[in-house]
Amino acid sequence: MRQVAIIGIGQTPVGEMWDKSIRHLGHDAVVAAMQDAGVVTADALFVGNMLSGELAGQEHLATLIADFVGLRGIEAAKIEAACASGAAALRLGAMAVASGQAETVIVAGIEKMTDTLPDETTAGLALAADQEYEVAEGATFLALNAMLMQRYMHEYGVTHRDFAPFPVNAHHNARNNPNAMFPMSISVDKYEKAALVAPPINILDSSPICDGAAAVVLMPASRAREFGRGQRLIYIAGSASATDTLAVHDRSDPLFLSAAYLSSQRALAQAGLHLGDLDLFELHDAFSIMSVLALESCGLAERGRGVELGQSGAITLAGKLPITTMGGLKARGHPVGATGIYQVVEVVQQLRGEAGANQIPHAHIGMTQNIGGSGATIVTHVLRGQD
Amino acid sequence: MRQVAIIGIGQTPVGEMWDKSIRHLGHDAVVAAMQDAGVVTADALFVGNMLSGELAGQEHLATLIADFVGLRGIEAAKIEAACASGAAALRLGAMAVASGQAETVIVAGIEKMTDTLPDETTAGLALAADQEYEVAEGATFLALNAMLMQRYMHEYGVTHRDFAPFPVNAHHNARNNPNAMFPMSISVDKYEKAALVAPPINILDSSPICDGAAAVVLMPASRAREFGRGQRLIYIAGSASATDTLAVHDRSDPLFLSAAYLSSQRALAQAGLHLGDLDLFELHDAFSIMSVLALESCGLAERGRGVELGQSGAITLAGKLPITTMGGLKARGHPVGATGIYQVVEVVQQLRGEAGANQIPHAHIGMTQNIGGSGATIVTHVLRGQD
Repeated sequence: MRQVAIIGIGQTPVGEMWDKSIRHLGHDAVVAAMQDAGVVTADALFVGNMLSGELAGQEHLATLIADFVGLRGIEAAKIEAACASGAAALRLGAMAVASGQAETVIVAGIEKMTDTLPDETTAGLALAADQEYEVAEGATFLALNAMLMQRYMHEYGVTHRDFAPFPVNAHHNARNNPNAMFPMSISVDKYEKAALVAPPINILDSSPICDGAAAVVLMPASRAREFGRGQRLIYIAGSASATDTLAVHDRSDPLFLSAAYLSSQRALAQAGLHLGDLDLFELHDAFSIMSVLALESCGLAERGRGVELGQSGAITLAGKLPITTMGGLKARGHPVGATGIYQVVEVVQQLRGEAGANQIPHAHIGMTQNIGGSGATIVTHVLRGQD
Repeated sequence: MRQVAIIGIGQTPVGEMWDKSIRHLGHDAVVAAMQDAGVVTADALFVGNMLSGELAGQEHLATLIADFVGLRGIEAAKIEAACASGAAALRLGAMAVASGQAETVIVAGIEKMTDTLPDETTAGLALAADQEYEVAEGATFLALNAMLMQRYMHEYGVTHRDFAPFPVNAHHNARNNPNAMFPMSISVDKYEKAALVAPPINILDSSPICDGAAAVVLMPASRAREFGRGQRLIYIAGSASATDTLAVHDRSDPLFLSAAYLSSQRALAQAGLHLGDLDLFELHDAFSIMSVLALESCGLAERGRGVELGQSGAITLAGKLPITTMGGLKARGHPVGATGIYQVVEVVQQLRGEAGANQIPHAHIGMTQNIGGSGATIVTHVLRGQD
């Protein structure tokens, strides 16, 4: 198995991109990543996307993007694993390189969610839940997450206000991210008084519906040094994917994300690293409760004490374990199938030392975790900077 | 890179499966393949599927199936490449094994197309075409194929009747396939007089809308001998995927499927084999014209002379290059995202010597070719029986 390096990154701004169709979003991210990598062609393009069929009327998306960016003829396929589609695509793209089936692979995450009515987008997102046993009973993703947050507050006696550090930190970090959708600070008071969406979740607990695309270029580590603009090389040191029941009600312990535990343990083991080695962690803060459950399920906080990690300041840029360093899903935005690649692009920026005002000094090891559904598919990657 | 073996196969009957939802179809195929392989667990499940979101209201399909078959926790992802989704999933599943990221991988192709109105299914299939430049102008897949057939007849001076050997052969072979949707012989006269759908394409040129699922179990060849029921081992000797423009009107020569040429040449080169080594070829006969274009584009017939290959009898079970040996898309049926895996399952049956009345004597090398869109994504596999 060959070691895989990330030699190029690209991203579009995240937001309501009324002047870009899904093919233009994909084009912009892929071309930016190729320019960053210093490559003019590739063997394959894998696209992480969840809802192009439902919301843009376009399946066969990867082939369309390959054609549209001028790479006609190369291999192309779309990977779908709900909101974990981006990281699932990266994992398969890395396998293509590791197996020797491809030398240069582009992996893009692309999502266009705002060209439809909000009801249609909500219905589209619900396709990630169990259609026959959750959605048919009226459960949306928001409702499922609200029940998890309610249960957590009941179980551990914490208040809604205790979750404030997570969105506050995310919005604070987004201020210096030119691609973030909501680059403005919020106060704890503003968080507490925000409009309720599905109690106890309010609008500032929730990542936004938006458009965006991000891309990376992969190559065998042994060849990677010939390319690029002299940036530090970044290696995929560990990669793992695990699943849980699709329906939340089938889990004996809904507050433990077993797929987060399994995939993070496997990815770290593959990298020969431990939780204590992480310099940053881009987690999947689709809702505030998900940040807390991810930290606890990965073993970064004790059960019931994830909110304390937020309150302690450990999650800030100056803390012991910075998270959502460029704004996370909450403030950078969550174009669902693209999110997993945005996370990786942002960790690469940190490990290269290109994160600007948000740079974590001496960042060398970063973990990304991309969650599909209410924890049903979780893909974790461990990235390592060049020594 | 590790060599990959197919150690188990499974399939459901193809047809209008009113009593099975998409999860039940997937379950039946996966469990059958696992039983055939003699395995009770796996590391990953990759699902080829095109339309579960649009037609079954269910994305996140691979994780749902993993959960439903009792493999909760394993890696899972869905692969989409229009009607080539099945073979695209096989290719990625094989990379997972070859790269060392997984030991036992299940790849399933699953599609449920009949629980919706015919108009909805037709609209769903059109998602594989270019939404902004084909579909918006009213082009369905049928219309695009009709234009290709019309052009071919004009260009080479052949008649509609000249295409008869392809559906006649497919239906003849389907008689001995217990899983085929239309296992009955048809005459040339019946073909000529069948109801027109989009001139010159009639109903007997067209593969049916249907439900079905098929699955294979993959393992490194070095470990494969420990499992199974003593069947002959089958190796994935070559695998390649290539693309063309999504929109047919962007091609300088619409009657040449360049992705069929590229992917078959690469797969054969990987296998160290030549066209003359093939004992059978499961091609993608979604419409009669596609059989002819595939044979010509792969170099198995000269340009404009593909119909003669049909007329010569070479494509029958007793011929020089048998195709659609268990009925093909035309008569076995074409549950779109599942088709690529049905093709592989049928070649494995032939190479194992388990094809019953349709067995090709001494079959040792078989090629499968799965086409997405009007030739925009084409995935070719070369399978080799154990020596």
